Amino acid sequence: MKFIATPVKGMNDFLPQEMRLRQHVLRLIRDTYAKYGFDEIETPAMEHIENLSGKIGGENEKLIFKVMKRGRDLEKGLASGEIADSGLRYDLTVPLARYYANNRNELPTPLKALQIGNVWRADKPQKGRFRQFTQCDIDIIGDGSIMAEIELIAATSGMLTRIFSEVGIREFTVHINDRRILKAMAAAAGFEPEQYDEVFILLDKMDKIGLDGVREAMLAKDYAEEAVDRYIGMFRDLSGEPDVREYCSGTCGKALDGNVAENMNTILQSVREMISPDVHLVFDPTLVRGMSYYTGTIFEISIDGYNFSIAGGGRYDDMIGRFMGQSAPACGFSIGFERIITILRDLGWKEEDHAAGKTALLVDEKASAGKLMEVFALATRLRGDGEVVTVQPLKKNARFQVETLEKNGYTQIRKVFEDTQL
Amino acid sequence: MKFIATPVKGMNDFLPQEMRLRQHVLRLIRDTYAKYGFDEIETPAMEHIENLSGKIGGENEKLIFKVMKRGRDLEKGLASGEIADSGLRYDLTVPLARYYANNRNELPTPLKALQIGNVWRADKPQKGRFRQFTQCDIDIIGDGSIMAEIELIAATSGMLTRIFSEVGIREFTVHINDRRILKAMAAAAGFEPEQYDEVFILLDKMDKIGLDGVREAMLAKDYAEEAVDRYIGMFRDLSGEPDVREYCSGTCGKALDGNVAENMNTILQSVREMISPDVHLVFDPTLVRGMSYYTGTIFEISIDGYNFSIAGGGRYDDMIGRFMGQSAPACGFSIGFERIITILRDLGWKEEDHAAGKTALLVDEKASAGKLMEVFALATRLRGDGEVVTVQPLKKNARFQVETLEKNGYTQIRKVFEDTQL
Repeated sequence: MKFIATPVKGMNDFLPQEMRLRQHVLRLIRDTYAKYGFDEIETPAMEHIENLSGKIGGENEKLIFKVMKRGRDLEKGLASGEIADSGLRYDLTVPLARYYANNRNELPTPLKALQIGNVWRADKPQKGRFRQFTQCDIDIIGDGSIMAEIELIAATSGMLTRIFSEVGIREFTVHINDRRILKAMAAAAGFEPEQYDEVFILLDKMDKIGLDGVREAMLAKDYAEEAVDRYIGMFRDLSGEPDVREYCSGTCGKALDGNVAENMNTILQSVREMISPDVHLVFDPTLVRGMSYYTGTIFEISIDGYNFSIAGGGRYDDMIGRFMGQSAPACGFSIGFERIITILRDLGWKEEDHAAGKTALLVDEKASAGKLMEVFALATRLRGDGEVVTVQPLKKNARFQVETLEKNGYTQIRKVFEDTQL
Repeated sequence: MKFIATPVKGMNDFLPQEMRLRQHVLRLIRDTYAKYGFDEIETPAMEHIENLSGKIGGENEKLIFKVMKRGRDLEKGLASGEIADSGLRYDLTVPLARYYANNRNELPTPLKALQIGNVWRADKPQKGRFRQFTQCDIDIIGDGSIMAEIELIAATSGMLTRIFSEVGIREFTVHINDRRILKAMAAAAGFEPEQYDEVFILLDKMDKIGLDGVREAMLAKDYAEEAVDRYIGMFRDLSGEPDVREYCSGTCGKALDGNVAENMNTILQSVREMISPDVHLVFDPTLVRGMSYYTGTIFEISIDGYNFSIAGGGRYDDMIGRFMGQSAPACGFSIGFERIITILRDLGWKEEDHAAGKTALLVDEKASAGKLMEVFALATRLRGDGEVVTVQPLKKNARFQVETLEKNGYTQIRKVFEDTQL
């Protein structure tokens, strides 16, 4: 029988110790969002191929794992060249839009959804990038008010404070901006609407090439020097964490609806009261967020020492409607689950610090039935007291057996022979 | 944009209330097995097509969802007719064997594995049968002693007692037999080894057609009447729950190695001490378990009023070795997760009985920023006390909003206007 022991290319087998960390974090995530009234939902791993190819997935649509038709459908497909009728989802956004369209009459309104699930991308495998990985999205659909932003940001900050405190980290930064402020600033500087997207792409490089680097790159684009300098000037002095209303009226003037800055101020004030004082919550006019579907508030969470964000999201009021043919405001946060796992492992998260005591009873194979019953009686008693207990035969290679048990968090390891007193 | 709102055929979108039940049960399962020292493991949803077609999957191999090759591999495949290089797993057994072969140098020995995951079968969809569903398997690999059977049965009984007590059910039945006893009884009755499989298939029908029905079906097969009557006689009086050693020596005589009955007796005695006295633990010589790969002890759990088993398993010492080219004893239990969910829903499991209090604060959209901050301060306080709290805008269709909240377990629902005292 031909048999291949390795997993499919780019995918992972998770060992017990990795699973314990993953499950621990999943539980903290579920518990936190539940407390904020988010409901977990689940959709199938597969979606209709038409939905996956609907242009909402951007580059990811090139990476679909396609699932073949079956039986007579496949025969017909081979003739016509259409041999796939479904594919594995490459994100949780397309499934969410479909789910909402399919079930909205039975769903709470607004829907506060938590989705945790695997997604699949036929990407070139490389360090830290896999073809199957876990995504974690929270979204509020049907709430056009700023309550959605406040709940999303407060819940996510609370969740991260709880998780990272386990490795001694209490500080991280929540950056908030608004696509409307971004646009109004570009307008006030003198850029044309068709230039905005490119301008924002350059602005987004600030943390890599610095403000002067951004200025040079903009000048190289043949923009009016006056507009560039006026725009760059708006970002010169941000160190004092400006008041969002003053900053916006100073930079955007009448290019911005006054409500936007007012609402942003309320979001900042409300969230600040709800989260740990160690979390930096900042209005950050340089925050861009790449995806074109954002329509309002955008936000991102970063942590010192890591050059990737650990969560990001924003308001996307038009997208769900495009799918459904009926408009629905929406706001969401995508949590970098795999990145959180990486950071925790990196910072030496230890199972022992967060788990019950673990006892292993290793029984000599020659022990009598009576002795065995004594062992199981002891195991039952210890389990009743809340301990983790495993009963297993003492192996000939006892050293390897003990080592693997220790690696899996067993601190009490007892060998039991016929004459051992229990 | 063409967009299909329904899920892929035969697959499910889970609503929030269904998810809460599923997640609650998953948590009880994980917590119980963890206490018995089982380690959760995870493998990818996809497996190499060669492994899935390796004859171990039986009928399920016809139901594979095949995943297409990509890029140049696909072009080559279209020419040669091999267009799939992987498929979605149809069970958790093939992945377990591959996982063990791939990782055994880093795994504890014995490995006590818990797997919870979705599997996919392109079956004809019908009531209660889906094309994506959750399986839950526990297996002990590398333990040839009866400690494996004792741990598996005790842990699973403990788990079911905990889960079913939530709907007032404390009684269920654990049936235990051994493929070697089955064979020895057939031998002692006078059947030929090549007749055993067919004889067991007929015996397995006893709960449907009764013992006399089985006798008639056997006689119709042209077996020697003497063998049939001797065999049927062995099952005539089982009501008194026979002592397994006496029963085996009476029915099998020398056709059975004495250790088998002795070990079965120790399993029964040990497990009985470890589980709830309300659980019926019976040696059941009529238990067959269909799969041909079982080599020793077999077991099954049933519950009054339901004509399906809720868990089943046994010892399969040769199968992992066939995959690995190196022998490894193994014993496993498959938990009917979807069946457990069905029973709980059937018996009226209520979220409210097992959850924290849930409060909804519905805020009038005209409320001021100051009022909003008051609301969030109250929400933060209640969440700190352990309550589930959602803050959301009061909808125009408030009746529907309140109804869906009630359906989702909210017992405190408050409408907040500018002049509401909090």
